[in-house]
Amino acid sequence: MASLRRISGLSNPTVKYMRALRDKKHRKREKRFLAEGLRLLTDARETGHVPEILAMAEGRDNHPLLDALIADTQAAGGEVLELSEAALAKITGKDNPQAVCGVFGEFDTSLDRIDRRAAPLVLVVQAMRDPGNLGTMLRTADAVGAGGLVLIDDCADPFSVETVRASMGAIFTVPLGQARWEDFRSWLREGPGQLVAASLRKPHDYREAPYEAPCFVMIGNESRGLPESYEDECDLRVTIPMLGRADSLNASVAAAVLAYEVIARLR
Amino acid sequence: MASLRRISGLSNPTVKYMRALRDKKHRKREKRFLAEGLRLLTDARETGHVPEILAMAEGRDNHPLLDALIADTQAAGGEVLELSEAALAKITGKDNPQAVCGVFGEFDTSLDRIDRRAAPLVLVVQAMRDPGNLGTMLRTADAVGAGGLVLIDDCADPFSVETVRASMGAIFTVPLGQARWEDFRSWLREGPGQLVAASLRKPHDYREAPYEAPCFVMIGNESRGLPESYEDECDLRVTIPMLGRADSLNASVAAAVLAYEVIARLR
Repeated sequence: MASLRRISGLSNPTVKYMRALRDKKHRKREKRFLAEGLRLLTDARETGHVPEILAMAEGRDNHPLLDALIADTQAAGGEVLELSEAALAKITGKDNPQAVCGVFGEFDTSLDRIDRRAAPLVLVVQAMRDPGNLGTMLRTADAVGAGGLVLIDDCADPFSVETVRASMGAIFTVPLGQARWEDFRSWLREGPGQLVAASLRKPHDYREAPYEAPCFVMIGNESRGLPESYEDECDLRVTIPMLGRADSLNASVAAAVLAYEVIARLR
Repeated sequence: MASLRRISGLSNPTVKYMRALRDKKHRKREKRFLAEGLRLLTDARETGHVPEILAMAEGRDNHPLLDALIADTQAAGGEVLELSEAALAKITGKDNPQAVCGVFGEFDTSLDRIDRRAAPLVLVVQAMRDPGNLGTMLRTADAVGAGGLVLIDDCADPFSVETVRASMGAIFTVPLGQARWEDFRSWLREGPGQLVAASLRKPHDYREAPYEAPCFVMIGNESRGLPESYEDECDLRVTIPMLGRADSLNASVAAAVLAYEVIARLR
């Protein structure tokens, strides 16, 4: 194994660069993002994603999965850094000397990434603002074998540390597309695809609705739901029963309930 | 309308008292909790929960729902405070002069609160640590008309500001029970009740499983899942298909997918 580069200073340019990737503006400029944790980085590695930079604390406990990460990073020409605990904490924002983190190139998120024939279901979110919800959506998209997740309008950044963490590795497995509504609509109508949303306007019960593959299940913003004109564009409007006092579910919960119904019927 | 009490100082005892309710130790000592936001406080009011103290900023915009809150709080003998923006921000931790917040007495959370004959389904969480997940569970429990939510072992505090917020008002509508596992198990076996959990050990497919009311759907800790001995105690073990790379769903998502299946079959 090649020797690792040791850095102890907090003002080292690489430490500063990695720290800055917690900030969206910097991420977008560099087209890079941070992923943290041995499990997440192992998920990445096992799906063919090796970090450009891998960082850990000096004196960290040995672990075979970490050894594999180091070897693969070096084999791919990436850089492996041993940092002082203080320098690592500066990057991760946490005081955990067992932490590991990696820098990855952002993926292409054009709509071309979504293959509508790859699966019976694609998830679509509109203006989803909460990074945790977005990460949970990615995790659900992986679990239901979705052909991808499409982000419409002004969503949280899928490459933020919080979203990547909540995705539990699904950021590396689920094809992502980002588009304005008009562009998504044009793209959708160029081929087969049933656009479905939860709605209160003359909906089908979600357990009885006539889903068709490829089914695009769309979920709106956490507070406002979908704009009316987006609902109008849907081929199918469905409702999930609300038996209590509340009139809505958490957005990522609603997505999962619908998505599991759709795949039970279409796969 | 009775005149409101005006407080501008940051070191006023009531301001300090309310601020301290963000801290669990203080909440448990005082048996009080904070709820924030006009919508949440209105949900509370509409379900018969009036704050002991209601606080807002001087010069806040008028709103008929706020007027109703003020009137009901005063009618019930509660205190209504107009604070300086700085004092309000000290309580809420946010710089939002339109914020409103209220102090409520904590509810009884003994298992007696759960009526197993009130609904076909009760949700149970074990060692759920994330306040947002717990709040989302409450919101889902309301939506499926669950007879309650039982918290087993060391869960996040259901009365934390984060849980109350994520519950979207369901903290006021869903009966809560808190118990150690042994006590819950004894209570459960004193009457009818089918204990169900997601499991990988010889499970039924969740779409085909023979659910029976009252059905207690139990979800384990976010990282570790349920202890094996808890799974052994279950009357029914079910599995949700995982079609991608991940081997689990977000805990509150898994709960919702199971809960909606159960009520579709039992209600």
